[in-house]
Amino acid sequence: MQNQSPLDNISIVLVETRTPANIGSIARCMMNMGLNRLVLVNPLKPPDENTFRLAAGADEIINRAVVATSLSEAVADRNLVIGASRHTGKRRTNIRNPREMAGDIVSLLFQNRAAIVFGNEVNGLDNEALALCHELVAIPSSGAFPSLNLAHAVMIIAYELFSASLEKHSSSTRELARSEELENYYHHLQETLKTIEFLDRDHPERIMISLRQLFSRARLDSREIRILRGALTAIKAKCNK
Amino acid sequence: MQNQSPLDNISIVLVETRTPANIGSIARCMMNMGLNRLVLVNPLKPPDENTFRLAAGADEIINRAVVATSLSEAVADRNLVIGASRHTGKRRTNIRNPREMAGDIVSLLFQNRAAIVFGNEVNGLDNEALALCHELVAIPSSGAFPSLNLAHAVMIIAYELFSASLEKHSSSTRELARSEELENYYHHLQETLKTIEFLDRDHPERIMISLRQLFSRARLDSREIRILRGALTAIKAKCNK
Repeated sequence: MQNQSPLDNISIVLVETRTPANIGSIARCMMNMGLNRLVLVNPLKPPDENTFRLAAGADEIINRAVVATSLSEAVADRNLVIGASRHTGKRRTNIRNPREMAGDIVSLLFQNRAAIVFGNEVNGLDNEALALCHELVAIPSSGAFPSLNLAHAVMIIAYELFSASLEKHSSSTRELARSEELENYYHHLQETLKTIEFLDRDHPERIMISLRQLFSRARLDSREIRILRGALTAIKAKCNK
Repeated sequence: MQNQSPLDNISIVLVETRTPANIGSIARCMMNMGLNRLVLVNPLKPPDENTFRLAAGADEIINRAVVATSLSEAVADRNLVIGASRHTGKRRTNIRNPREMAGDIVSLLFQNRAAIVFGNEVNGLDNEALALCHELVAIPSSGAFPSLNLAHAVMIIAYELFSASLEKHSSSTRELARSEELENYYHHLQETLKTIEFLDRDHPERIMISLRQLFSRARLDSREIRILRGALTAIKAKCNK
């Protein structure tokens, strides 16, 4: 039996990848860096001979890859969902570089499961996918030529995670809430804020994005979500009197 | 005129590269990471259509690449020659990981020229080439599957050099709320939670400690506090109706 590595609790999630060769190249990167869980969300084409040629021996990663039909399904059991972003949008504040991200999450992996999510080669992650991410990681690159090959981006993230796993960490014992619990809380929060007329019924997005970002940084656990939802329930009870 | 970057004093030297596609992929990595000097020592084949396809727009790196007939010619004007090694041999003591190497040489680049030398896809650098290197850099990888694609190896080194060149500017620009703003928010929160009868009027401490801890982890800024207090005000307005 192999020793359990914290890296076993990371999945690399590729959303709507267009090029089968990239999937192979990514499998090689992952195996080089001790990662082994690959999830493909609606790949444009299934793995083919180019996939295995570029994998250069990392076939087992491809053969064991899980195929999912939606990102929410792919990350449902994950406590931490981190999206790879190509650029820092104005509203995006929960964004870190790969080194900060890796150093931070590796210590959480003894108790938690994480997903790193990559969009397709052309468009990256769309807003619906970004909304499911608790935080973002952006690879620093030249402003004059910022667009990385998808496999190169995965390699840098994988390298930082592997490097961080080689350093000794004081493992955190705090178990974070799962993605599904968090999404249910955000839904409850949004409904309550509409009830008290704090959110515009038609355009709640901007405020909700800010609230999601601040609660993502807090890394909520299940008990905290129960407290927060308890407060929401109390608001409703009181306001309906 | 562009600003001079210390990275302009780095050349990436590829010795006897076999696959033209890899040269293109490496040109893309270099341009992503602000490197621009590529030297090809006896490439097996000249750049072809696959080179430019994989370069994805980094054509100028390929068009300006210098072709040399020996490694000693390629590195003659360099003050620092660093070889990329695939493994740590017993006799190799001048060997560092990419982060240590990059942090160290970037500060030297204002006064010095450096070359990072990569061997071919199959054999790496031979002993004659290694003898020309002042020191070695080895990328950490899984013992079970250690062999990186050549372009992936160049990407990791280029990423570390670029990151090291940014280091002075990497501090976060987000300004956090002051203690007084935070305490006023907690006071407002506690009063509101009493109003809605979520907190026991006599013993609010336990829940408030949990809430303080989670908001502390979020590292709130002033704008976020305005949003959160706006929601509290809305609760009060609604509940008093």
